[in-house]
Amino acid sequence: MPTITGSAAKAIIKGALLSERVEEPIAEYVAEGLVSTSLRGVDSHGIRLIHHYLNGIRSGRINRTPRYKVEQKFSTVAVLDADHTFGHASGMEAARIAMAMAKEHGSGHVAVKNSTHLGAAAYFALEIANHDMIGMSFTHADSLIIPTHGKRKFLGNNPVCFAAPVEGEGPMCLDMATSIITFNAVRRLREIGGTAPAGVGADAEGRPTTDPHQIAMLLPVGGYKGYGLSLMVEVLCSMLTGMPFGPHIPKMFEDLEQKRYLGHFVCALNIEAFQETAVFKNRMAQLVNELRNEPPLDPAQKVMVAGDPEKIREIARRRDGIPLEEPEFKQFKELNARYGLNINLE
Amino acid sequence: MPTITGSAAKAIIKGALLSERVEEPIAEYVAEGLVSTSLRGVDSHGIRLIHHYLNGIRSGRINRTPRYKVEQKFSTVAVLDADHTFGHASGMEAARIAMAMAKEHGSGHVAVKNSTHLGAAAYFALEIANHDMIGMSFTHADSLIIPTHGKRKFLGNNPVCFAAPVEGEGPMCLDMATSIITFNAVRRLREIGGTAPAGVGADAEGRPTTDPHQIAMLLPVGGYKGYGLSLMVEVLCSMLTGMPFGPHIPKMFEDLEQKRYLGHFVCALNIEAFQETAVFKNRMAQLVNELRNEPPLDPAQKVMVAGDPEKIREIARRRDGIPLEEPEFKQFKELNARYGLNINLE
Repeated sequence: MPTITGSAAKAIIKGALLSERVEEPIAEYVAEGLVSTSLRGVDSHGIRLIHHYLNGIRSGRINRTPRYKVEQKFSTVAVLDADHTFGHASGMEAARIAMAMAKEHGSGHVAVKNSTHLGAAAYFALEIANHDMIGMSFTHADSLIIPTHGKRKFLGNNPVCFAAPVEGEGPMCLDMATSIITFNAVRRLREIGGTAPAGVGADAEGRPTTDPHQIAMLLPVGGYKGYGLSLMVEVLCSMLTGMPFGPHIPKMFEDLEQKRYLGHFVCALNIEAFQETAVFKNRMAQLVNELRNEPPLDPAQKVMVAGDPEKIREIARRRDGIPLEEPEFKQFKELNARYGLNINLE
Repeated sequence: MPTITGSAAKAIIKGALLSERVEEPIAEYVAEGLVSTSLRGVDSHGIRLIHHYLNGIRSGRINRTPRYKVEQKFSTVAVLDADHTFGHASGMEAARIAMAMAKEHGSGHVAVKNSTHLGAAAYFALEIANHDMIGMSFTHADSLIIPTHGKRKFLGNNPVCFAAPVEGEGPMCLDMATSIITFNAVRRLREIGGTAPAGVGADAEGRPTTDPHQIAMLLPVGGYKGYGLSLMVEVLCSMLTGMPFGPHIPKMFEDLEQKRYLGHFVCALNIEAFQETAVFKNRMAQLVNELRNEPPLDPAQKVMVAGDPEKIREIARRRDGIPLEEPEFKQFKELNARYGLNINLE
C-alpha cells in the first residue's frame, strides 16, 4: 500500500487551498487538522476529506475569506459567527478564545455558528489540553442516528470529545461518536463483503439489519444513552447557536452550493483554578498507568486508556507515513500536478 | 404493594435526620433529594437510602454539622471542601455557587471534595435547569466497572448528567450511568430468578457471565466508549479535587467508620450569555416535540427524549404515592415510631 508522509500531505493540502485563494491562516488550520488526524489513524476525518472540501470551496459553500464576528456579553462565554468558513479554522479560533478566557477567569466557552464540517473534534480538545487545560469539543452533524424506538434517522452522529494533559506523554483524549459503529465502517464492510454486528444499523424502513448494503441508518451506542448524549450535543451546538437541528441541517454530501449552517461548542477549563497543574498531571499519569497495568482478560489485548490507540498509530505513521489506498494516492498525485506544487511523493 | 406519599416520606426522612442532630438545611436537602428522586421513579437512588445514611451518621462517616470551605482563585471556578457531609447538601451548595458565578460571568464550575454519596446526579442538574440555565453534574463512585480488555473492576459507574430547560414543561434531563445495566438491576434479576443479557456483567474472575448470581462486576456501556466516559468523570471528580480514584475510593457499604473522600463536579451555563433564553426554550420545545412525534418502529413504544420516562413516572407517583416493597414500608414505619414522628402513613 502506498504511503504519504505527514509533511508531504500537509504541503499538498495547504498548497491546494492557497491556490484556491483560501486565506493563509485558514489553509494552515485545515492542513494541520487533516494531517494530524490522519497521523493519529483516524482516516475517516483525515486527509481524504480535502477533495470534498475543495469541491465545497469551488461550489461556494465554504468561505475562503471569512470575517469572524464575536458576540460576547459575559466574560466566559462567546458566540463566534464563522461566516461559513472551514470548521477546522473556526473551531481553532473558538479554542483560542476559550483558552484566553480560561486563563483569566478559570473557564471559557465558545459556541460557533454559521460553520461547516468541523473535522475531528479531537483536534480542538487536544490543542487545549496541550496548553495544560482541560479541553472539550462538540459538533452536531447530518441526521444519521435513529432515536430509541424510532424508525427514521433524526440526530447526527454527534461526537463528545474530552482531553486532559498527562505528565510525560500526550493528553488522554476521548473522542467518541454516538453511534455504535461509523458509517465509514459500514462502507468498509460493503467493500470487503462483510456482515455487520447485530444491533448497529437499520435499513431504509428502520428495520434492524446486519447486511451492510441494506444499512441506511445507524443505531445509538448503548440505546437511549447514546441517543441522550447525541441530544446533549445537539443542545450545545444547535440550541445555543440558533443553527438548525437534526434533519433540518443541510447534508454534507448533497447540494454543495448550500451552506451547512453548522454549530460547534468548545470549552476550556483552567486546571490551575482547581489545583496545581503539576499535581494534576502527575496524578493523571498515575491513573492512566494504573489502568494500563491492569491484568488483561486475554493476554494478547492489553488494557488501554482513551487516546492510546491513536498514540500508538501516531508513532507508526510518523515513522512510516500515512497509508493510502491506491486510488487515494493517485488523487494526491493529481492535486500535486493540478496545482503545480512539485511535492516529492516518492 | 404499599405506597407512601412524597410528603410523608419527606417528613419521616427529615424528622429522622433532625433527631440525629443533622443541621436543618442539610436535612432538608437530603430529604428533598431522596424524595424527588423516588418521585421520578429512580428507586435505586431514592428514599430507601435513608437507612444506609442514618448508619453513616451514627458510625461517624457523615458529618452532621459541616463547616464548608470554598477555595476560589478565578471568577468561574471554585473548589468546595464539603467537610464530609451529605453529597445532597454539598452538591446543592455547589450548584448554588455555580449558578451565582454563571449569572455574573456566563458560567460557573464547582468541584467538590471531601464529600460522601451524591445521590442522584439529576437532583443538581435539574435544580440548575429549573433556574433557566444548562446544568451538568458528575460524581465518581465505588470501583465497579471493568475497563475494556481488563478482568478486574477499576472505575466506578460514574454518571454523566445534563439538563436544559424546555418551554412549557420540566427540563430535558439525561442522567446516565456508564455501565450497561446497574448493579441494582442485577440484584433484581437474582430475586426473580432471571438471566442477565449477554455482555453486561462478569464473574469474580472477570469472565463474561449471564448468571446474575455470578455477576460481580459490570461492563461499560458501548465498550470503550462507556469506559472512556467513566474516565472523563473520574478526571473531573478525582483529578481536579485531589480525591482518591477508582479502586482507592473507600467503599460505600463497607467500614462505615471510614470517610468516603468523594469528589463531584457541578457546572452551570447561563443561556442568556449565548442568546435569548426565551428563544432557546421555545426551540428546545420544538426539538423535543419533533422527536416525540417521530413514527415509532413498534406502535406500542413511542419515541421519547431523555427525562421523559421520569416525567411520566413523576405524574403517577405524585398522584398515587411511591410504591414500596412490604419490608421497605415496614422500615419507614419503624423510623416513624423510633423517632416519635407521628407521621400518618395510611
